[in-house]
Amino acid sequence: MHPLVRQMEYAVRGALPIRAEALSKQLLTDKNLGFERVVFCNIGNPQQLNQKPITFFRQVASLCENPELLKPSNRETLLKLYPADAIARAELLLKHIGSVGAYSHSKGIHHIRENVAKFIEKRDGYAADPESIFLTQGASAGVHTVIQILTQNNNSGFLIPIPQYPLYSATLSLVDATQVPYYLNESKDWGLDVKDLKKAVDEARAKGADMRALVIINPGNPTGQCLTEQNMREIIDFCHTERLVLLADEVYQTNIYKPDSRPFHSFKKVLCSMGEKYKDQELFSFHSISKGMIGECGRRGGYLECVNIDEKVMDQLYKIASVSLCPNVQGQILVDLMTNPPVEGDASYDQYKGEVDAIYQSLVRRSSKLADCFNSLEGMSTNAAEGAMYLFPKLTLPQKAIDAAKEKGMAPDTFYCMAMLEATGVCVIPGSGFGQEPNTWHFRSTFLPEEHLFDTFCTDLKKFHGNFMAKYKD
Amino acid sequence: MHPLVRQMEYAVRGALPIRAEALSKQLLTDKNLGFERVVFCNIGNPQQLNQKPITFFRQVASLCENPELLKPSNRETLLKLYPADAIARAELLLKHIGSVGAYSHSKGIHHIRENVAKFIEKRDGYAADPESIFLTQGASAGVHTVIQILTQNNNSGFLIPIPQYPLYSATLSLVDATQVPYYLNESKDWGLDVKDLKKAVDEARAKGADMRALVIINPGNPTGQCLTEQNMREIIDFCHTERLVLLADEVYQTNIYKPDSRPFHSFKKVLCSMGEKYKDQELFSFHSISKGMIGECGRRGGYLECVNIDEKVMDQLYKIASVSLCPNVQGQILVDLMTNPPVEGDASYDQYKGEVDAIYQSLVRRSSKLADCFNSLEGMSTNAAEGAMYLFPKLTLPQKAIDAAKEKGMAPDTFYCMAMLEATGVCVIPGSGFGQEPNTWHFRSTFLPEEHLFDTFCTDLKKFHGNFMAKYKD
Repeated sequence: MHPLVRQMEYAVRGALPIRAEALSKQLLTDKNLGFERVVFCNIGNPQQLNQKPITFFRQVASLCENPELLKPSNRETLLKLYPADAIARAELLLKHIGSVGAYSHSKGIHHIRENVAKFIEKRDGYAADPESIFLTQGASAGVHTVIQILTQNNNSGFLIPIPQYPLYSATLSLVDATQVPYYLNESKDWGLDVKDLKKAVDEARAKGADMRALVIINPGNPTGQCLTEQNMREIIDFCHTERLVLLADEVYQTNIYKPDSRPFHSFKKVLCSMGEKYKDQELFSFHSISKGMIGECGRRGGYLECVNIDEKVMDQLYKIASVSLCPNVQGQILVDLMTNPPVEGDASYDQYKGEVDAIYQSLVRRSSKLADCFNSLEGMSTNAAEGAMYLFPKLTLPQKAIDAAKEKGMAPDTFYCMAMLEATGVCVIPGSGFGQEPNTWHFRSTFLPEEHLFDTFCTDLKKFHGNFMAKYKD
Repeated sequence: MHPLVRQMEYAVRGALPIRAEALSKQLLTDKNLGFERVVFCNIGNPQQLNQKPITFFRQVASLCENPELLKPSNRETLLKLYPADAIARAELLLKHIGSVGAYSHSKGIHHIRENVAKFIEKRDGYAADPESIFLTQGASAGVHTVIQILTQNNNSGFLIPIPQYPLYSATLSLVDATQVPYYLNESKDWGLDVKDLKKAVDEARAKGADMRALVIINPGNPTGQCLTEQNMREIIDFCHTERLVLLADEVYQTNIYKPDSRPFHSFKKVLCSMGEKYKDQELFSFHSISKGMIGECGRRGGYLECVNIDEKVMDQLYKIASVSLCPNVQGQILVDLMTNPPVEGDASYDQYKGEVDAIYQSLVRRSSKLADCFNSLEGMSTNAAEGAMYLFPKLTLPQKAIDAAKEKGMAPDTFYCMAMLEATGVCVIPGSGFGQEPNTWHFRSTFLPEEHLFDTFCTDLKKFHGNFMAKYKD
């Protein structure tokens, strides 16, 4: 295999989760592990932690699976199980799709791309073109294709944030391109200084890199920050000056926990608002059905909007999409539902709104509860989550713990996280999996465990942390 | 972008299908094209051409989407719409899956991999290990991952058949590996001579290629042949001698039209039957829910079995699978249903068997009807389909047609296929998209149009062909 593949790391599914899985199996027969369950805080996978799916979405999806139900002879029975608007939506979708068992257009079903374009227009106030939208198997697949198309050879450079969601480093390894890291500033709420970007680009170019693109994750993963509009303008201007394509990972756009002080702005909107001078600035924006209040991770759905992208590049994107034939149709259907949900007056609207609001409010509470818990611990501090599903607390570890880690050949944060897993069943991911400033230690934890488990969860963490710090006290 | 991406060709979704799509749109407003509908014979996409999905499969899939239906309070109503065994299967699957909206294990749901292993054991009579099975988003995704992992650098060589399904050439271009073609012999029912393989390997090695693997598509695509067990033994022995990994694309394993003279044998079974000497021979076998009598292309599901693969390579495969998180869960569910369908005594068995048999018998009739049609035409001849969903007739074109094609800058077979599309609305793919012996011309057509349309379909083709040959008569 390619040497880079061997080197590639993907911590979100790495050593910690593999051990967590083993413990999970062990728990089936061995009740003496000191905890009742493994809590998977390693990955933003809400439905694994029992978040309920949005009822309307699943109703429509199930009707699309089984069009026999839609026969007139079944209507009376069906209405006992399904609201009329779910039936109407499924009929509309099937009219455009045909069968969910047929390959669709490689870019995705045109009707759904039209709905995505309308959603973007409504969100941003600027036009969107269905032909510039590709439906994808989750955001990951879109990111992979775009990075592939922008890579000319192993000298092609991509600016990626540190800390970063390791999809980016892994994909750059897979296509054999050059990673050019820039640091997010923890002491400024994981903000981003254009001066640091400039320094990173200049250094990379001095080493001969052919700089192609800047990756921004906003809201941030694992860092949870949400960029200000002013900061985004600076970033766009920077890309424009340096002739870099902007890759905007915006999958957490509805996971916004400080909507007044830190609302979400899409890069598309900010770019469009900057006028004529920037009309050639190339932008790819990624969205997903896996995050937000939807959390339909297992379906693998998302979209990719191409803004100001050269027609020839668009043709190549289409060709690559064609090789994998099409994104799965059930994922596409959820993209339709995400971008075109029930509206006021629809039979399902109240239930839909109630479900979304309840999940959102609970995430707000859980994010601040977990931040409070972490901040109450000796040697641990975390910024509040402005967005996304994660906290990324900083660990200050006693020298004895660092020495003990070294002895085991582990990074100190990995050592700490492994100890946490063994003691509490809570699986988080060490900061080294995301990258961090040298000689700082962190971990990423989701705040997705069920709310009624949160007090126990925090108590367990506190107890573990106290024991750990006592054991390795300097 | 990478120069190889730009060069890459993917004819199955290339110029012909793009023109076919445009004609399809034009037909909505313009009824004067000389045909009523575009018939997409460019791709094995049965449900696009109105093949009905297997009822039981869709029932289970729809119940898994909407677990609310499974509540006891709904049971009475539900039983008016669903047979008891579909309900029981959905309950069993959900017990193992949790929610279809959660990311699963990156290799796929363990329970489903167990069922795949049982299916393989029953098919072959040799043990299969769930841990050696990866569920994939269609066979294409599995092929991509395996080729990626076997590629060390652009010198890594892969034997691929000519003609071939262009997934292989496209994927090798994407990962920047070396294609080493070997020819299938049209005059011997598209059979495969180990002498030709040996010649291709020796020539490639003489040029410095580091030969890694042999790709076999059996039953063949686009060629429709089904290999004899004897021939398979020779191929395995060849791989063993030459130290090549064997990649067996076996997605058409149930599309077998001469089961007595040319039954399907899996490479796994034949390899296992060859005894101790071959116990290190590495094999990857691919299967899919998109083909057979199922045709659930739009869901993107399949699996990959790894036989005698080094543990370190297995770890790397798992890591790459992890980067895209997991195959979509609805695709996984269909893999479960494909490998573990209703059996005699189940409430749904008769209907299931009836549906599968009807599709199979109709495919048998359609394949021979289309072969007869092609063979009745001047300058056209085709082998019968022993398997798969395609015919790949050979065209002998008048010089004037070849000259006319040249004038338009087209390959003669592309010229012919484009003329067929414009005259009849039938979209097939020129042989140049699959590769062919120099100075021979072919095209690939599925035999998937609905049976009741077949007489018109054949009449239209005959009429077009007659006109074409008259127009370009030498």
